[in-house]
Amino acid sequence: MRALFTDLYQLTMAAGYWMAGKSADVATFELFVRRLPPRRDYLLVCGLEQAIEYLSTLRFTGRDIDYLRQLPQFDLVPDEFWVYLSNFRFTGDLWAAPEGSVLFAGEPLLTLRAPIIEAQIPETYLLGMIGFQTLIASKASRLLRAAAGRDVVEFGCRRAHAPEAGCLAGRAAYIAGCAGTSNVEAGRRFAVPVFGTAAHSWVLSFEHEQDAFAQLQQLLGPRTVQLIDTYDTLAGARLAAHLGPPLMGVRLDSGDLLTLSRDVRRILDDAGLSSARIMATNDLDEDSIAALVAAGAPIDIFGVGTSLATSFDAPALSAVYKMVEIQSGSSHRFASKRSEGKQTLPGAKQIYRFPDHDLLALQAEPPPPGAEKLLHPVIAGGEVLVDGKNLQHMRDYARDQIRRYGHPHRRVELSESLARLAHPTQP
Amino acid sequence: MRALFTDLYQLTMAAGYWMAGKSADVATFELFVRRLPPRRDYLLVCGLEQAIEYLSTLRFTGRDIDYLRQLPQFDLVPDEFWVYLSNFRFTGDLWAAPEGSVLFAGEPLLTLRAPIIEAQIPETYLLGMIGFQTLIASKASRLLRAAAGRDVVEFGCRRAHAPEAGCLAGRAAYIAGCAGTSNVEAGRRFAVPVFGTAAHSWVLSFEHEQDAFAQLQQLLGPRTVQLIDTYDTLAGARLAAHLGPPLMGVRLDSGDLLTLSRDVRRILDDAGLSSARIMATNDLDEDSIAALVAAGAPIDIFGVGTSLATSFDAPALSAVYKMVEIQSGSSHRFASKRSEGKQTLPGAKQIYRFPDHDLLALQAEPPPPGAEKLLHPVIAGGEVLVDGKNLQHMRDYARDQIRRYGHPHRRVELSESLARLAHPTQP
Repeated sequence: MRALFTDLYQLTMAAGYWMAGKSADVATFELFVRRLPPRRDYLLVCGLEQAIEYLSTLRFTGRDIDYLRQLPQFDLVPDEFWVYLSNFRFTGDLWAAPEGSVLFAGEPLLTLRAPIIEAQIPETYLLGMIGFQTLIASKASRLLRAAAGRDVVEFGCRRAHAPEAGCLAGRAAYIAGCAGTSNVEAGRRFAVPVFGTAAHSWVLSFEHEQDAFAQLQQLLGPRTVQLIDTYDTLAGARLAAHLGPPLMGVRLDSGDLLTLSRDVRRILDDAGLSSARIMATNDLDEDSIAALVAAGAPIDIFGVGTSLATSFDAPALSAVYKMVEIQSGSSHRFASKRSEGKQTLPGAKQIYRFPDHDLLALQAEPPPPGAEKLLHPVIAGGEVLVDGKNLQHMRDYARDQIRRYGHPHRRVELSESLARLAHPTQP
Repeated sequence: MRALFTDLYQLTMAAGYWMAGKSADVATFELFVRRLPPRRDYLLVCGLEQAIEYLSTLRFTGRDIDYLRQLPQFDLVPDEFWVYLSNFRFTGDLWAAPEGSVLFAGEPLLTLRAPIIEAQIPETYLLGMIGFQTLIASKASRLLRAAAGRDVVEFGCRRAHAPEAGCLAGRAAYIAGCAGTSNVEAGRRFAVPVFGTAAHSWVLSFEHEQDAFAQLQQLLGPRTVQLIDTYDTLAGARLAAHLGPPLMGVRLDSGDLLTLSRDVRRILDDAGLSSARIMATNDLDEDSIAALVAAGAPIDIFGVGTSLATSFDAPALSAVYKMVEIQSGSSHRFASKRSEGKQTLPGAKQIYRFPDHDLLALQAEPPPPGAEKLLHPVIAGGEVLVDGKNLQHMRDYARDQIRRYGHPHRRVELSESLARLAHPTQP
């Protein structure tokens, strides 16, 4: 059912490769990001599990093919191509950096080698899925750095780019280190911890705020978090304090969060509720969080919506998927485009990680001593080699990667062979 | 299967309303945008068809309920609530502005009235779906204005926020007036015209560019669009010209598009290919398109990806869904929050459109003479009243709306009754 989530030209090219007798040619493509967005020091790789699931289940149904056949772009395509497409399955190889890896501009997030039609068709889906989750995980890691050890919860599904993106944002944010998400589907599908108590409409549905607060305690018991700003934040805080336990905490969603959090903390403490936590929401981003943390705001949990689930300040990665090698019978070529400003590096590559820099080298080169290989085989001959579903492991790995490599200005060097291949006319 | 695409607090509140004996209370919510994003003069409303489909099919499966029951947030919720939820269906009313309407900040895109649990649960999904498609349609209308009558095609699914967003972006862009999309799923699901020919990998897969071009003509015939910048744009143009017809056009994807389009136009014209069209792509947005148009670049079609499918310069709307009235037995109240900077206007409203301004008035007020009502009934008592699927009609309507109302600084006034209700203490 996902086969048509693609650009039409992937399928016209597929038909063209078939008609040109190229369907046995084997192509290698790499997915990488041309440039880091502004204010990003690194990418936190995310979305591989969905990429693997897509490749291993990609099929064209009869309904897919019926739709395609009637498009005018396929008028000249012979019937045999549709027979081919109805039997399509991915039989190639995939190497990838594990989810949670810290990578940099120009480094392949994945390398795919397959008969050219099987390598071409997945481009759009892989870019969309891995590009988006990597975008969100990378943004989440910035928010977490700003929060300096306080919890960050992903609250953005209402502002994400349609409901499915909200669910995937919850997954990516959790892998990056967020405490969880408000998105229930992300909770069920990926076992991400889910958070949520009540909104302003809850308070408004009662004639008196006090009744809303008391009833929430009946509902949530020790998990009660009172939203105290519907009418007047400090009056709301006093009301919550007056009602006493059970009270996990209160939430501030408007106004001057620094001043209010201090005043509310005092009200709670004076009522003997020093274990009650303060959560803040309201269009937060890494700058406002960093300012609150620097000022010592007594906020324990930041709920972040729009800025996280849309990566608001940089809502896209310049992720591309480029052919780097092609094998036709016994003829092998390296491939690279030379379009102005958009040149690509030929050759299937491996990323070698040293403590202080990364080295991009051709896969075919002998590995340099003392370096870690970042691209691992995950699909071989169409068979999935890994079980990608341990989010807790990805999260631990991401934390370690960010600590060790998530620094600005890390160098990415090219091996001599790769540099020679890329610039054959230079000395 | 979409019931869990929501914030957890919608479901905790649902349980809370049920426990508080409020499940027969009838609430009215409005979905609106607080402020227009920077550089937006209006909203082009989009996404209603999906909202209607969601509301009319929303159910909780046994699997949904099994997941929810084991969450600690529901520890205190009695079994009867889960029986209620397993029988859930939407039985309320929905009024909405048709897709393609031009609206402004503060005006309801839709008004939903239903038993409070049924009105609360849809919040997240409606915001995500309508907010996103409205965001994209509004951006598309800016791009089309910049293109000043030239075609714009939506090419952004690889950069959209995951594949489903790419498909919906294709729909929204088409309703706004784009010529079509590259997204095949949008083509099949919504009958949007689909565009696509070949990418750089097509050219790279051949040893000689000339073979790639000739083979593309075999594949696409009169629909051939040659991508001419893989190695050298002008050499590519000469090659395409030399091969001659069939040739619908050429595509430029890098370099100085103004100079190149002029040079390429000359090469094509000199070869007698004056009917061949020039398409340009390469991170275009409304500013670069407007500059190319102003300079008289001979570009016939603009393909726009990232900036359109992510609304790059403003990737979120401040869309909210707020309770405005609540009826509990014989007691009726208007509802509005007073949170600092986030006050809302109480009361279910109607938008009345006059030639030079809009008037927001209470639904209960008598309609002013000479005005058009913008909110129409689309669901009544859970029954869908409209067939929302005519995209061509929406597109025609959008064109007319933009022409008549898509201007900056259009005034939105409040009726006296609404102003009195919102500020009861003011004279």
